[in-house]
Amino acid sequence: MAEFIYWVGMAAVAVNALTGVLEAERKEVDLVGACFVAVATALGGGTVRDLLLDRKVFWIADQTYLVTAVVVGIASFFLLRQRSIPPRWFLFPDAIGLALFTMIGTQLALHWGTPWLAASLMGVITGVFGGVVRDVLCNEIPLVMRVGELYATAAWLGALLLIGLQWAGVPMVILPTRVR
Amino acid sequence: MAEFIYWVGMAAVAVNALTGVLEAERKEVDLVGACFVAVATALGGGTVRDLLLDRKVFWIADQTYLVTAVVVGIASFFLLRQRSIPPRWFLFPDAIGLALFTMIGTQLALHWGTPWLAASLMGVITGVFGGVVRDVLCNEIPLVMRVGELYATAAWLGALLLIGLQWAGVPMVILPTRVR
Amino acid sequence: MAEFIYWVGMAAVAVNALTGVLEAERKEVDLVGACFVAVATALGGGTVRDLLLDRKVFWIADQTYLVTAVVVGIASFFLLRQRSIPPRWFLFPDAIGLALFTMIGTQLALHWGTPWLAASLMGVITGVFGGVVRDVLCNEIPLVMRVGELYATAAWLGALLLIGLQWAGVPMVILPTRVR
Repeated sequence: MAEFIYWVGMAAVAVNALTGVLEAERKEVDLVGACFVAVATALGGGTVRDLLLDRKVFWIADQTYLVTAVVVGIASFFLLRQRSIPPRWFLFPDAIGLALFTMIGTQLALHWGTPWLAASLMGVITGVFGGVVRDVLCNEIPLVMRVGELYATAAWLGALLLIGLQWAGVPMVILPTRVR
Repeated sequence: MAEFIYWVGMAAVAVNALTGVLEAERKEVDLVGACFVAVATALGGGTVRDLLLDRKVFWIADQTYLVTAVVVGIASFFLLRQRSIPPRWFLFPDAIGLALFTMIGTQLALHWGTPWLAASLMGVITGVFGGVVRDVLCNEIPLVMRVGELYATAAWLGALLLIGLQWAGVPMVILPTRVR
Repeated sequence: MAEFIYWVGMAAVAVNALTGVLEAERKEVDLVGACFVAVATALGGGTVRDLLLDRKVFWIADQTYLVTAVVVGIASFFLLRQRSIPPRWFLFPDAIGLALFTMIGTQLALHWGTPWLAASLMGVITGVFGGVVRDVLCNEIPLVMRVGELYATAAWLGALLLIGLQWAGVPMVILPTRVR
């Protein structure tokens, strides 16, 4: 199970990298610029979480995440030049990615002895901060702050629900062994 | 006295959260977006200071700061929809907040063995960085950098004065025990 | 040699501070705002590298870097009011600065036990992140991401080349003793 979650987490990194390239494309950046945004979007949230918790940054501890983000960044840069992909194709994996990042972030923070409200914020940061960095880099108001977007709301409610369930005694297996 | 300063510091967090919502309102963000900006504005400066000094982040160590920022963020979001408040009402608490954040930041850095010029910069960062994050999130040139605004200048002079006084042997009580 | 590199590194800090003021000037900021951008541009990359590697931040460990950035920031603020300097004068020192920052960052990361791809990214971050912060503060799309700019590409190739050379057994002396 932990192994499964590790790879779903990796898929979430890939999807986030893709959304970074999607937005960077619209700003006419070159390959390295696109890679830069891809990496920042995919790894930004977890990096801020690890810095705040004073953990070893996850993609320095396990380089596979970084390799994934770079490879997806390069591949999608060339792919998106060839043909545009309808944005709604990304909705489902994007939602999975947000949910998973949020859950992993919340669990890690609790595991690290963080008080509950701060832990829920860690979850939200892990889930949405990559997108904030992407939007700031591309000189836009972060998507997460715009009216009608429920990203952060969904992530926060999910994090609080997770903490509530754990407090109520429901066993959790969401924490991937390798991320620990 | 330390107890008193702890609560004035908490008031400064509240005022900073309020200025975050004030600016976010003008960008048409929703409740969670407003909370996000409120928390980033209120806790951003101290967070960067703690990361740079390699201290435990203050709002993870003591969750009260985070609760304050979130509660003020939510309350002022709804309050500001009802009626607008003249901005000059905030000038006095805002100035108090800036001064206090700067002093606490400078003292903490000195206490941590930081050389004097770096310590004064830590003070300035604690005082003004929250506002910088707020402006970057809202896609504006940071207020602190605009001509005629004396925020950072005042904070820096204050920090240097504080270091000078301490060097001259004036006893200091500004460091709140709980923040230590 | 290590002493020599220490001072070339200091020169790179000075040049980066200058490019910060150059860009800030165009946004009508005041002296403290210009200093703020100068310091962020000059020290931003190395600061992020040190936070990610969990090292003591270099300009807190050795205040000389901070003093250099502030002095250059103040001096160039007044100098640039007097007379404008043709931008191409900065190209050569700027390139030296980028190359040196990238090499120091890569070496430090390897020395710290970072895996190779992550280490090359640390080099790139050290080299270009200061400029990214400068552009975000000045509300522009980061130069590094624009089409046709080869900054990050050059830095990344350089970092990978350096890692390749070191892997092949070429002795390295680029790491300044004082930065260690």
